[in-house]
Amino acid sequence: MQSNHDVGLVSPALERYTRGPLNELWKRPDLSPRDRSLVTVAVLIGRNQTSELSQYLNLALDNGLEPGEISEVLAHLAFYCGWPNAMAAAAVTQGVFSRRGIEAGRLPPAHAELLPVDEAAEARRAAGVQRDFGAVAPAVVQYTTDLLFRDLWLRPGLAPRDRSLVTVSALIAMGQAGVVSYHLNRAMDNGLTQAQASEVLTHLAFYAGWPNVFSALPVAKAVFEARAK
Amino acid sequence: MQSNHDVGLVSPALERYTRGPLNELWKRPDLSPRDRSLVTVAVLIGRNQTSELSQYLNLALDNGLEPGEISEVLAHLAFYCGWPNAMAAAAVTQGVFSRRGIEAGRLPPAHAELLPVDEAAEARRAAGVQRDFGAVAPAVVQYTTDLLFRDLWLRPGLAPRDRSLVTVSALIAMGQAGVVSYHLNRAMDNGLTQAQASEVLTHLAFYAGWPNVFSALPVAKAVFEARAK
Amino acid sequence: MQSNHDVGLVSPALERYTRGPLNELWKRPDLSPRDRSLVTVAVLIGRNQTSELSQYLNLALDNGLEPGEISEVLAHLAFYCGWPNAMAAAAVTQGVFSRRGIEAGRLPPAHAELLPVDEAAEARRAAGVQRDFGAVAPAVVQYTTDLLFRDLWLRPGLAPRDRSLVTVSALIAMGQAGVVSYHLNRAMDNGLTQAQASEVLTHLAFYAGWPNVFSALPVAKAVFEARAK
Repeated sequence: MQSNHDVGLVSPALERYTRGPLNELWKRPDLSPRDRSLVTVAVLIGRNQTSELSQYLNLALDNGLEPGEISEVLAHLAFYCGWPNAMAAAAVTQGVFSRRGIEAGRLPPAHAELLPVDEAAEARRAAGVQRDFGAVAPAVVQYTTDLLFRDLWLRPGLAPRDRSLVTVSALIAMGQAGVVSYHLNRAMDNGLTQAQASEVLTHLAFYAGWPNVFSALPVAKAVFEARAK
Repeated sequence: MQSNHDVGLVSPALERYTRGPLNELWKRPDLSPRDRSLVTVAVLIGRNQTSELSQYLNLALDNGLEPGEISEVLAHLAFYCGWPNAMAAAAVTQGVFSRRGIEAGRLPPAHAELLPVDEAAEARRAAGVQRDFGAVAPAVVQYTTDLLFRDLWLRPGLAPRDRSLVTVSALIAMGQAGVVSYHLNRAMDNGLTQAQASEVLTHLAFYAGWPNVFSALPVAKAVFEARAK
Repeated sequence: MQSNHDVGLVSPALERYTRGPLNELWKRPDLSPRDRSLVTVAVLIGRNQTSELSQYLNLALDNGLEPGEISEVLAHLAFYCGWPNAMAAAAVTQGVFSRRGIEAGRLPPAHAELLPVDEAAEARRAAGVQRDFGAVAPAVVQYTTDLLFRDLWLRPGLAPRDRSLVTVSALIAMGQAGVVSYHLNRAMDNGLTQAQASEVLTHLAFYAGWPNVFSALPVAKAVFEARAK
């Protein structure tokens, strides 16, 4: 999973953990290699780790992620990780696409026919955010509705379940456990099973570090328990 | 705002969001392009995103930020983001200044005549920190007084309101919503209006990502409400 | 401590703070230059600041840190900061080791005879994590036992006290104050004195920024006070 042939020159232990547990991580059940690639790419974009990104974008394509899906991940994470992260990732992606002969014509167009919105759920979400923060940052509230939940999330080039997967992964990788609850629930509403969510946490432990995952575990526990009732 | 001519090759959607909403963001009222540049540069230094920094330093200078102000931002954010972030940013800044022929003689000197300190407010701040943490980390408490509040913050090369602006921006961008309250209050004491603070949050949503801003919204709400009483 | 000869060209103030307080920081009592190097390297790996890492790895070796200890730090922080951080740091380390003629034969082997485990303490730790999160992320819980506490932490190439030192430093530098409590207690159980821990916080203020340290101060205070009883 890593170009680890040189790691042993500076850390034989790290090479062993890479060849063993990290390598086996990708073969564990409950989360496909494609999904693991989505999670990993989201971590790298969320933490702006561009030097590792090229390798994992290539692996993602090998694991069955479509170029169009990567294209949508970039736009999605611009909002969730910040524009500079997405622009830096886009530059790396351009190199990967170019070397593989992937042309822009294969990618989802700028304006796509949007998926239908769940008006009732969206109205509840918007009302809650308006009530909480409408007087604090009205423009943030408005952009959240117009750009995120009535545009970005409805673009058909990346399934809602996959948008949730990269969002939750990026949030945990950025240390934003406090806002994971809404998106983990949304991910499970969008079809992510609890076994998959648990395995996302396992994958993130290795790629985003144990502390970020341990900060997210109480949130995940509360979400799982509330949904089991 | 971004060299986005190539982004469309990998993400037509991201290019559209960049040419549209992100571009328009910079033209919104309530926060000047100069202030938006301060916010953006603080984000990039706070998150060590040096590859985007050169472009935004040039934009900042085009938007009216003085070289001497950028010079002070570097020193200021060394303390608030960590020395490695400031040193990496200084290296990028050197390239920008060099290409524009900006010489060190135009910059604020190492030792400047300091602004007057508000002795009563500073005594209250120092006493609070001493009471809370004097026994835990006495050297941190002492440095906070000597280096930050009786030196750095009083340097005249960057207005206190602008120091607050970059501090609040960096804190939110680094995911440190927990310590935003003191500095947002200080920013507003230093002249940042609520409309400007709200627009800073809007700008940060795009540049530091939605989750960091949503983590800061409850803190901003509490500050705004407490000051309205 | 920094190649700061050019910093004065863009920020005379930053150069003054670097030549003065930052330089003197390294000479303060209660924490040796070697320990300060461990803390600083942990910050840089935790925040993926590879461009500064080479300089500080060289300083660490000059300050008496053994190549084998650096080798173990890399493996240790793979788990605590995430694999991409460790792999990027390994690449930088390879350059440093190569230039100094440090060969892999001098490094701790992949499989080492492990230190004895404190079975009672480890059983308590494992039971607590199992009780809290066993149903949420069983694989994370199992890996935490098998890979971290019954393998990594017992490798003899880096003393438990030093593993704790880099863990605590990385946690604070990554803004993970919420999970510092366990590891700060463990650090002090492993021999870190309160005076050293306090000085670690002082060092981190400069290298990871004031906000990360102020977020950690309440946690450190609670730990110090609980241990004083």
